[in-house]
Amino acid sequence: MSGDSIEQLDRRLQRFARERDWEQFHSPKNLSMALIAECAELVEHFQWLSQEQSYRLPPDKHDAVAMELADIFIYLVRCAERLDIDLIEAANRKIGINERRYPAQRVRGDARRAGEYDNPVE
Amino acid sequence: MSGDSIEQLDRRLQRFARERDWEQFHSPKNLSMALIAECAELVEHFQWLSQEQSYRLPPDKHDAVAMELADIFIYLVRCAERLDIDLIEAANRKIGINERRYPAQRVRGDARRAGEYDNPVE
Amino acid sequence: MSGDSIEQLDRRLQRFARERDWEQFHSPKNLSMALIAECAELVEHFQWLSQEQSYRLPPDKHDAVAMELADIFIYLVRCAERLDIDLIEAANRKIGINERRYPAQRVRGDARRAGEYDNPVE
Amino acid sequence: MSGDSIEQLDRRLQRFARERDWEQFHSPKNLSMALIAECAELVEHFQWLSQEQSYRLPPDKHDAVAMELADIFIYLVRCAERLDIDLIEAANRKIGINERRYPAQRVRGDARRAGEYDNPVE
Repeated sequence: MSGDSIEQLDRRLQRFARERDWEQFHSPKNLSMALIAECAELVEHFQWLSQEQSYRLPPDKHDAVAMELADIFIYLVRCAERLDIDLIEAANRKIGINERRYPAQRVRGDARRAGEYDNPVE
Repeated sequence: MSGDSIEQLDRRLQRFARERDWEQFHSPKNLSMALIAECAELVEHFQWLSQEQSYRLPPDKHDAVAMELADIFIYLVRCAERLDIDLIEAANRKIGINERRYPAQRVRGDARRAGEYDNPVE
Repeated sequence: MSGDSIEQLDRRLQRFARERDWEQFHSPKNLSMALIAECAELVEHFQWLSQEQSYRLPPDKHDAVAMELADIFIYLVRCAERLDIDLIEAANRKIGINERRYPAQRVRGDARRAGEYDNPVE
Repeated sequence: MSGDSIEQLDRRLQRFARERDWEQFHSPKNLSMALIAECAELVEHFQWLSQEQSYRLPPDKHDAVAMELADIFIYLVRCAERLDIDLIEAANRKIGINERRYPAQRVRGDARRAGEYDNPVE
């Protein structure tokens, strides 16, 4: 993977949208809708599977799932670009917050805490 | 942004989950649910805004949206890791497919085509 | 519309699932995934439209949207049945809460309040 | 449950929105976003649970889930009203389609078919 992979992807996506005059449709509001619609296609692959089955996808389904993850990533990068947000920086900042919010020794193996990943532990 | 940003993020997230013994909860099925739940928090920020307003967020809302994009990215990277999928490679492959599927001269400025982004034209 | 429409629908859906031996897949967890996947298909119809356009759908699109609403309703009724929740009673209870939470004279025409529909106004 | 429960709910919701001058925000596009955001709150309750656990919710969580189903139902009824769609009629029409699409003797106990609930067989 090359050094500036997300930037390269970002530029390729900008060019793709501009060449088709699709930037007019790509407001953050609209992109958030496209993003969640793609996520739902991912969810759909897993909805009737057991958790164990969701690890062991047959090759054609694994490939279809890879293309769903790609779609999610594409719209995520587009959305970040329109709002001038650095995804890597934001993600590292958020992990830092989570590390302080969920001290390992306190939440270890606790699904309830994992399930409240975004709520402060009082 | 450093050369192997996604890999670094990925390793940091793996360590985060292992230290808390949360990997047991992180099946692809469960992660797809967490991912779409985070997307919905993004959508919620935009649901009553006009498209114009969605570009011009006040600073505190812009920051909250950045943290939602971070959460989406975090679960996307986790999900890709559990399924051994290379996000950058998958995204570039998908863009290649889209470039062939939507020739610029054919779909220019056509919202209907943009709206059917994932359906074959012909 | 007949007197016990939701109950009739509920019974028809139970029979449908049982005849196909699909109840084994219809855990509340799985049904919540199917439900959100159907919602996303609704969102997809609207993602590149303006708000004005979303009111004036051409007949074929209006019909497709009606079938998406139907799918959402179907999974909602199934999910409520599996958890023994009375949808009409729950909805009326929730509206009562909202009426107290958002006094008309206080939130009139305020998108911010509408946007925080589920958060208590301090 | 009284004879015209959904109609009563619908009228109560219309009055609620009008008294707060919130109808201006309730375009079908915006309501589809609010609807999926509520669905995601439902999904969030189940994301780290096993399928078995999702049936046996403790009372406080069961009540919280009932309020999420209520929110989904509320936005679904609002969306149908704005688009002049009869939910009960649409759902019965869709079940009829599904009954023909998935003959019981053909799809019995087949998760793959259940998983492709909305795709035509063959």
